[in-house]
Amino acid sequence: MRKQTSIGDYISVKTAKREEKGILLESHEPGILLLKLDSGYNIGIKQSDVKKIKLLKKAGKEEQFMKIKHSGKNRIDMIITGGTISSRLDSKTGGVKSLTSPESLLNLFPKLADIVDIRKIEVPFMKLSENMEEKDWIKLSKVVEKSLNDKDCQGVIITHGTDTLHYTSSALSFIFGKLNKPVVLTYSQRSSDRGSSDAKLNLECSAYVALSDIAEVVLVGHASINDDFCYVLQGNKVRKLHSSRRDAFKPVNCRPIAKVFPSGQIEVFRNYNKRNNKKIKADAVFSNKTALLKFYPGQNPEILEHYIKKKYKGIVIEMFGLGHVSENFIPEIKRAVKSGVIICAASQTIFGRLDPYVYSTGRELLKAGVVFLDDMLAETAFVKLSWLLGHKNKGREVVKQDMLKNFYGEFNPRLGVGFLE
Amino acid sequence: MRKQTSIGDYISVKTAKREEKGILLESHEPGILLLKLDSGYNIGIKQSDVKKIKLLKKAGKEEQFMKIKHSGKNRIDMIITGGTISSRLDSKTGGVKSLTSPESLLNLFPKLADIVDIRKIEVPFMKLSENMEEKDWIKLSKVVEKSLNDKDCQGVIITHGTDTLHYTSSALSFIFGKLNKPVVLTYSQRSSDRGSSDAKLNLECSAYVALSDIAEVVLVGHASINDDFCYVLQGNKVRKLHSSRRDAFKPVNCRPIAKVFPSGQIEVFRNYNKRNNKKIKADAVFSNKTALLKFYPGQNPEILEHYIKKKYKGIVIEMFGLGHVSENFIPEIKRAVKSGVIICAASQTIFGRLDPYVYSTGRELLKAGVVFLDDMLAETAFVKLSWLLGHKNKGREVVKQDMLKNFYGEFNPRLGVGFLE
Repeated sequence: MRKQTSIGDYISVKTAKREEKGILLESHEPGILLLKLDSGYNIGIKQSDVKKIKLLKKAGKEEQFMKIKHSGKNRIDMIITGGTISSRLDSKTGGVKSLTSPESLLNLFPKLADIVDIRKIEVPFMKLSENMEEKDWIKLSKVVEKSLNDKDCQGVIITHGTDTLHYTSSALSFIFGKLNKPVVLTYSQRSSDRGSSDAKLNLECSAYVALSDIAEVVLVGHASINDDFCYVLQGNKVRKLHSSRRDAFKPVNCRPIAKVFPSGQIEVFRNYNKRNNKKIKADAVFSNKTALLKFYPGQNPEILEHYIKKKYKGIVIEMFGLGHVSENFIPEIKRAVKSGVIICAASQTIFGRLDPYVYSTGRELLKAGVVFLDDMLAETAFVKLSWLLGHKNKGREVVKQDMLKNFYGEFNPRLGVGFLE
Repeated sequence: MRKQTSIGDYISVKTAKREEKGILLESHEPGILLLKLDSGYNIGIKQSDVKKIKLLKKAGKEEQFMKIKHSGKNRIDMIITGGTISSRLDSKTGGVKSLTSPESLLNLFPKLADIVDIRKIEVPFMKLSENMEEKDWIKLSKVVEKSLNDKDCQGVIITHGTDTLHYTSSALSFIFGKLNKPVVLTYSQRSSDRGSSDAKLNLECSAYVALSDIAEVVLVGHASINDDFCYVLQGNKVRKLHSSRRDAFKPVNCRPIAKVFPSGQIEVFRNYNKRNNKKIKADAVFSNKTALLKFYPGQNPEILEHYIKKKYKGIVIEMFGLGHVSENFIPEIKRAVKSGVIICAASQTIFGRLDPYVYSTGRELLKAGVVFLDDMLAETAFVKLSWLLGHKNKGREVVKQDMLKNFYGEFNPRLGVGFLE
């Protein structure tokens, strides 16, 4: 019975009671047939219960590369950095592993070639995004910079793991500032070789955005769990808010820039920076003496001592509500500020803005020298502070002032800032 | 012109161009009239521009206490701990300050006396909730325990600041376990003496829930920005997700227990623990050698050394996505585990659940001894770990096993866990 099918095949298994469809995994328990269902869950079926197995689709061969067309008009560059979107199901573990070549990703999505002419595929590194850090943002930006200054390239698509995608998109927004063409980051929550993958819609929509006149660092991905359209989200006002859903990325304290449909139609919601001919220079420097610290009830102030001792230059504290910590934390904050550490405040509520003027705690923190970052995301604040501190020529006071300047839309000055709608 | 009005009055101010309504604040700039608008924003109006001032409502006098009725049937206890709901506008700063007596809170909401007979008002402490910590949870629980074992008391309402309300409600859920009557925590985002306050609806709805048969630790508050009904939310599956909106508290990875309308109607969404006659014993112990640590890109593993050195017993790490940190953090996690520190994983995506089996990083962390907390909120995980570690008789392995036990609904085993809807 097993002879007709091999590991990795998409099959249907019938027992007396039910029928299950999924990808056949390597089973380590004798007599058990292991199946990865479309839902993402693995189930084991006793081989003795199996009445019928039907082969629905042979396992894909990675070696059948897509032929890349060079029409010359709609050229974009693609940069692959790793993550689920560049992964395939590992039939041994039921987990995922990297695709063996970038071409094999494109091979899975032949429609892409009808939308864009993918001029080159760059792979600065292949990493799960949890392993990315400042030096990877810098390396990535050097590759992007080349494409931005190449007149034949209309835009850039970067595929990236989801875990730190919003940190990287924030970093690129500060590195490039006002852009000349679209820099589109995209992802998938399910590996690209699976029928239920979100990669197809995300990549096709990204291709249309890369050709559009939205010259910003944006994240393009599912707007909902329906596989019908994507949002175009501002790179430094977005956060991963679900561990597995395809619409995990949500705009925070601002609206999406646009909706994009798989037909190519783009429905714009608000203003954005337009495509232009500017030359772009990556301003890619970061200080790794920057920390992000979430405050919690009863937190011992000695944690700040640790950062002072380790010569940290800046800390973003995720405070409560409008920007509060407990009163016994304030003397240690004062000590940190006196030692030269820049202390910034963001809110752990994620949505909404800070206001240090409502309660005495806020006023005390303001007096202590804390920089209150209004509606800026804590993650974006961490990246921005690290970026500013990377500029050796900027003094401490200039960095503090710059933290409050709206460089690239990281602040949204509109009165009403909403929720997930 | 100023003689007819005094600081704290609600007035209308007409200039040639417009009319503004708000509470008159003490202005520190001569010639400027300072007004707190209904929107919560302060504006300054040049006195020379003012054409007409109309007194709309005199400032309330705190001393006019509400007469408490003792009908004996619908008795509940009220516990006031501080926060915005027990605050009034400070006309000097435009900020807020504490009400001078608990009765003055009830005085502002006379309709409460039609719903419930408030038997006693306890004030274990008056604190802004950012200053609350484990010992306050313990103190509070002792007061609640008395009311729970008082046969004449139908339920308990606790008013509380919003900043750490969800930490306290988590703590109470573990302290009391399966309850015998409702323990309702409520709040307001605007001080109670203001026309735009959300305290009225929240308190009235809380009163109905305190009389209901929902014997759980719940949070009752605005379901949306419309002042029309409240949600009844499970105390350990809720999080503050907006710094200022009245519907700041959202259920995470579960549905609300019920909707409650100001008419008293309660619309139930799911199962809950029913009112009963059990005797309740507060199990109120916490270890302050517990930390909550948010992981960020490039975080230096030396932070774990700090916690090992300071003899911490448990750390909840807010990891990326399905439960990941960078690979260079893993050796230090192993070292911490070997030193006897319990390391737990929760997701910084807030919504969704962990899955250590999809990627090698998760499998590595699992091998290192990390306890993966599925869909448990990081804040709840921190409180639960601190509570378990407070039990000196529990060994390390028992605490690890107990972290994975579903004590009081902190895990939601249902397959689909949604988003904010």
